[in-house]
Amino acid sequence: MISLAELQQSIEQGTLTAEAAIGRSLEAIRARETSIGAFVCHDDNARAQRAGPLRGIAVGIKDIIDTADFPTEMGSQIYRGHRPRADAPVVMALKQAGATIIGKTTTTAFAANDPTPTVNPHNGAHTPGGSSSGSAAAVAAGMIPLALGTQTGGSVIRPASFCGVAAIKPSYRLLPTVGVKCFSWTLDTVGLFGAGVRGIARGLSAMTNRGELVVPASATAPRIGVVTQAFAGAPEAVGAQALQKAARAAEQAGAAVRELAMPEIVAEAWRIHPVVQEFEAHQSLAWEYRENYDAMPPLLRGRLDESKGGTPAEYDAAMDIAGRARQALATIFDEVDVLLTLSAPGAAPKGLSSTGDPRYNRLWTLMGVPCVNVPALVAEGGLPVGVTVIARYGADAQALAAASFVEDALKRG
Amino acid sequence: MISLAELQQSIEQGTLTAEAAIGRSLEAIRARETSIGAFVCHDDNARAQRAGPLRGIAVGIKDIIDTADFPTEMGSQIYRGHRPRADAPVVMALKQAGATIIGKTTTTAFAANDPTPTVNPHNGAHTPGGSSSGSAAAVAAGMIPLALGTQTGGSVIRPASFCGVAAIKPSYRLLPTVGVKCFSWTLDTVGLFGAGVRGIARGLSAMTNRGELVVPASATAPRIGVVTQAFAGAPEAVGAQALQKAARAAEQAGAAVRELAMPEIVAEAWRIHPVVQEFEAHQSLAWEYRENYDAMPPLLRGRLDESKGGTPAEYDAAMDIAGRARQALATIFDEVDVLLTLSAPGAAPKGLSSTGDPRYNRLWTLMGVPCVNVPALVAEGGLPVGVTVIARYGADAQALAAASFVEDALKRG
Repeated sequence: MISLAELQQSIEQGTLTAEAAIGRSLEAIRARETSIGAFVCHDDNARAQRAGPLRGIAVGIKDIIDTADFPTEMGSQIYRGHRPRADAPVVMALKQAGATIIGKTTTTAFAANDPTPTVNPHNGAHTPGGSSSGSAAAVAAGMIPLALGTQTGGSVIRPASFCGVAAIKPSYRLLPTVGVKCFSWTLDTVGLFGAGVRGIARGLSAMTNRGELVVPASATAPRIGVVTQAFAGAPEAVGAQALQKAARAAEQAGAAVRELAMPEIVAEAWRIHPVVQEFEAHQSLAWEYRENYDAMPPLLRGRLDESKGGTPAEYDAAMDIAGRARQALATIFDEVDVLLTLSAPGAAPKGLSSTGDPRYNRLWTLMGVPCVNVPALVAEGGLPVGVTVIARYGADAQALAAASFVEDALKRG
Repeated sequence: MISLAELQQSIEQGTLTAEAAIGRSLEAIRARETSIGAFVCHDDNARAQRAGPLRGIAVGIKDIIDTADFPTEMGSQIYRGHRPRADAPVVMALKQAGATIIGKTTTTAFAANDPTPTVNPHNGAHTPGGSSSGSAAAVAAGMIPLALGTQTGGSVIRPASFCGVAAIKPSYRLLPTVGVKCFSWTLDTVGLFGAGVRGIARGLSAMTNRGELVVPASATAPRIGVVTQAFAGAPEAVGAQALQKAARAAEQAGAAVRELAMPEIVAEAWRIHPVVQEFEAHQSLAWEYRENYDAMPPLLRGRLDESKGGTPAEYDAAMDIAGRARQALATIFDEVDVLLTLSAPGAAPKGLSSTGDPRYNRLWTLMGVPCVNVPALVAEGGLPVGVTVIARYGADAQALAAASFVEDALKRG
């Protein structure tokens, strides 16, 4: 993989030009893209910018995010050839920080369930996960140091886990979703993929002008609460093993680690996540579903068919539960600095017919709290399995610092 | 004006066909549009739908809201000829309820300050207000029974007050802002304009499938807290007079009316509204401002030039104040059902160089609470002045019922 942190250091020290750094990505894309299929389109003539902390950093943008210089097709034939007038604010933030937008990465149609042809770079017989399939795969395949994705259920953290890369789903609305195809406005969150936690922290810091997001050279050992999310069912053996391994490594590195039970209202929030998601999706995708029914991707269309009867009263009740769960969760962060939990039930499933199960991710998206995936182990078939580090709403710097601590501990262990 | 409530009744009773109702709007547009300038474009061949509670209702859509069947030009040359692929969810909601989208109404560029050529239907030498200039003017001129606008500071309530029409800025996110050009995602709210409170209530009810929003035949007298917003400065004599008149009329109709002081944190929230608004606008409009600087509308460009130095720390502090103010405001609604306050400093200013001052509106947009404008008096020059009825967050039904009570009381008084 291409490390953003190392690239940035080489460019700043003058041992690598920004142009040569972009050249590395172009070369890697030429070498690997045909077998991975992570891009919808890319710019073979991409050039580096002259200034900015992200100069020389080639970035892939999930194809539900508006770009003025590339088509934005939402993974669906309904948007074939669609070219937005403007760049989305997150794309402009990357450009203003000096980054080079190198292309658009594959997305399941409308960031839902219908898979793309992208394969997992660690094992071509397996899914890379979704919905941000191309962004996770492009980073994992060493083609680019940074990519943007989005998460409504588990569309950033799950593919990151399956592809063995670091990723952050920041606090709700730390990054604007303006110009990003909406599925659910209460849930949709823009996230970043990179080779390591320090790299995504630098990327997010540069995009937001928030210096505090850069992980400090030496992180203090966090107080960690391990959450098994029993309400979401049991994980596969390898998922449980990843969580245990990460918890043990963190403890050995000096962290205070203990298991934490979630209050009932939080489990209740996990249950009603789909109510919020589908009620809003029926509005967000009303034009596509009502006026382009036959062209709709089949899995998403089926989901919308099934959830057609959702009522405002059910939605209001679900939103009320979400609000109370957020308050309950906030008090838990008085006892621990971060939570540690599963990023997925296990390794990436075989085949490309499913992008995997978001059941360990969706609660945290609804809570709006920052989540960071850290690769924890490599399972049979060379398939990675990750864990998630979660901090209080708004404490993205703490989530990244603690995730970096866990990442370092796992490397040592 | 064309009353939505009366039109709906006539159609339901069979004394008017939906087609004839649309014909009335087309005829009124032919007669009045040349002198008002409320539309960017409209469909001379618009037809009624056969079913739905809003069949026969011609609706004007503010031209920052995406429509697949009309261009969407954001009031700016930067978007000249721009045609979105999809209808915004609020447009689909109207269509699904049976309404006919008859055209796009004028908007100040990007819903900011640069005025449109639209004139006030009550006095052509005065502004109709903005940024939803065309929507307010088209309803006031009797061309259409319903129009959509948006509010970030005071862009729905203020033009409604200046044009003497009813309008609601609903609770934050009751209507999705998906497919609506973003200025500030924390503030932007889609609202409705109509001839009377009962009409906009029926429109909002049909769009959201929320039957409880329809105003009951006989409303109970509300407990009203009158808020003068001294922190926003003193109003003109006619503004103060409108507030007094509405308060007195409500009291005579049986409402319990008393003056209420706002806690300091709420005044503080009024002060920091521009910090939130401009910090987010710099991101939302980054592409326009950075890549189309010369084509930017001059007043908005000047605002963005001035606010360029806003920092994440200032924004975070402002968002923290907003959150605490929302909590403080919620406790006030334990004592009263609704607040009654100014919709504008006075009547519409002379000339078309300014759309007026949103200083009495912006706090409530930041608080996310439902606001309804009710016309209260007609000042010199035939210019209307309104007042605002405000309920607790999420209590849109209560805001509409109380506003209808005040509207009836003013008619009787």
